[in-house]
Amino acid sequence: MVDGNLGLGLYIGPHCMQMAIDKAKKYGVGFVACRNSTHYGIAGYYATMATDQGCIGFTGTNARPSIAPTFGVEPMMGTNPLVFGLPSTDDFPFVIDCATSVNQRGKIEKYAREGVDTPAGAVIDDQGIERTDTEGILRDMVLGKCALTPVGGAGDKMGGYKGFGWAATVELLCTALQSGPWGEDICGVDRATGKPKPMPLGHFFLAIDIEKICPLDTFKKNTGEFLKALRESKKAPTGPGRIWTAGEPENDARISRTSQGGMKVVAPLQKNMIDLRNSRPGLKEKYPKLPFE
Amino acid sequence: MVDGNLGLGLYIGPHCMQMAIDKAKKYGVGFVACRNSTHYGIAGYYATMATDQGCIGFTGTNARPSIAPTFGVEPMMGTNPLVFGLPSTDDFPFVIDCATSVNQRGKIEKYAREGVDTPAGAVIDDQGIERTDTEGILRDMVLGKCALTPVGGAGDKMGGYKGFGWAATVELLCTALQSGPWGEDICGVDRATGKPKPMPLGHFFLAIDIEKICPLDTFKKNTGEFLKALRESKKAPTGPGRIWTAGEPENDARISRTSQGGMKVVAPLQKNMIDLRNSRPGLKEKYPKLPFE
Repeated sequence: MVDGNLGLGLYIGPHCMQMAIDKAKKYGVGFVACRNSTHYGIAGYYATMATDQGCIGFTGTNARPSIAPTFGVEPMMGTNPLVFGLPSTDDFPFVIDCATSVNQRGKIEKYAREGVDTPAGAVIDDQGIERTDTEGILRDMVLGKCALTPVGGAGDKMGGYKGFGWAATVELLCTALQSGPWGEDICGVDRATGKPKPMPLGHFFLAIDIEKICPLDTFKKNTGEFLKALRESKKAPTGPGRIWTAGEPENDARISRTSQGGMKVVAPLQKNMIDLRNSRPGLKEKYPKLPFE
Repeated sequence: MVDGNLGLGLYIGPHCMQMAIDKAKKYGVGFVACRNSTHYGIAGYYATMATDQGCIGFTGTNARPSIAPTFGVEPMMGTNPLVFGLPSTDDFPFVIDCATSVNQRGKIEKYAREGVDTPAGAVIDDQGIERTDTEGILRDMVLGKCALTPVGGAGDKMGGYKGFGWAATVELLCTALQSGPWGEDICGVDRATGKPKPMPLGHFFLAIDIEKICPLDTFKKNTGEFLKALRESKKAPTGPGRIWTAGEPENDARISRTSQGGMKVVAPLQKNMIDLRNSRPGLKEKYPKLPFE
């Protein structure tokens, strides 16, 4: 159990995952729970730390409440990703990093930018209506009048109770061992004053050292062959004509962006980074010239 | 790693889960992979073995191929349950035991008995059509012309790639460490002769001993309070007016059936059980009178 002392999640997370990996290297499998952390960034990064070191990785985090239970309307659980990583002979590891809700808010903002409706069943409002009006949803989410639904959607017809069960599992793995807060207590806002307040998050990290069970190369080969078979299986004539396995779209993006000389850092963010570097002791020596300077 | 030697999964499974729990009691966390097993019954049973012994349980199994990848139509993965159990102060543990597909075949057979359509997006045929004709689906599934879709449904609109990623995770955890077969190799039928053939399945079992991290009573209290809050959260006016947490419907069924003096064993099954008892050495001494005799 690691206490993050409300420090930077991006620092706490790697420390915990490395602890889990070190334990796995010694005992075969390692598990680390963490409390009083903050947003730990890309969950799949931790799974990749494990795969880079010959381990199976498993991690999750809770977050401010946004998912309503099946047959409920109140945001009670975070988007709570359930994340696994497995090494493979592919150029990239198998990493499934996704929320246990149908969408996160970011996806709905994307629908807004595209000017399209949100698919029915992905958002429910406090009247129990499956909302599709993207702009209205974004407004009502802020007011707590709209909640995201778990994977499987609203109700039980398409298995929404499955996503609900997994979202609750992640919330519990992130709070029950830690006696950590959840729901309204990590909404990030003091309801009386409207001011921001700390959001102590919990995470968990698990690593399994593959070599303790079978040769790593054998494991990678097995994984690679299965994933290749999935990608080469028969395509839906009604679909895009390609099957992507987990981690592949991210790898495609990495290749494409690297070939263009990296990602563009927009001007306001460049300014933020320069200001931060100049105002904090030690950073100017460490980063005398940022890539875009 | 346990080799089941194609024995009875219902015997192999409990042996493996108990191994994982024993390892957890010694080291904090225990993981066991299993190969050459057969159908291991109710996956949630293993999660409950863990919760009964003060552990968090996690298990999964692969199965004959029935789920198609997102944007694919070919049954490539089993219904691959992703199963967690956590002890609670409730009268029953939190156990989420569900397939990573929207439905299993059994649910579609239920739709057939009820004479209703299968919801769109839960089944895709080899032409990429989202089929709803329940009777036709059951016929075409046998012919390999219909596949189940992962949780989140067909395509990517409602997050089907999430269920696909988790289904693939389970298939890999059940085969990659074990170098075990998957897909067509565990379809259970010799395509040349049409005769049944062995289906060597893989499983995995993980247990975390809660007392190694925090007092078990504290954990149970935390879990119980969170689950109670979920059940008591605001109901959808459009829903059944109740929120069930994982394990609760099963507990309700147990109470109701126990109050009726147990489950009815239908006559043909009674005869099967009597015949089996009478024909196998040792069973007649052990079960001289079955409950329904």
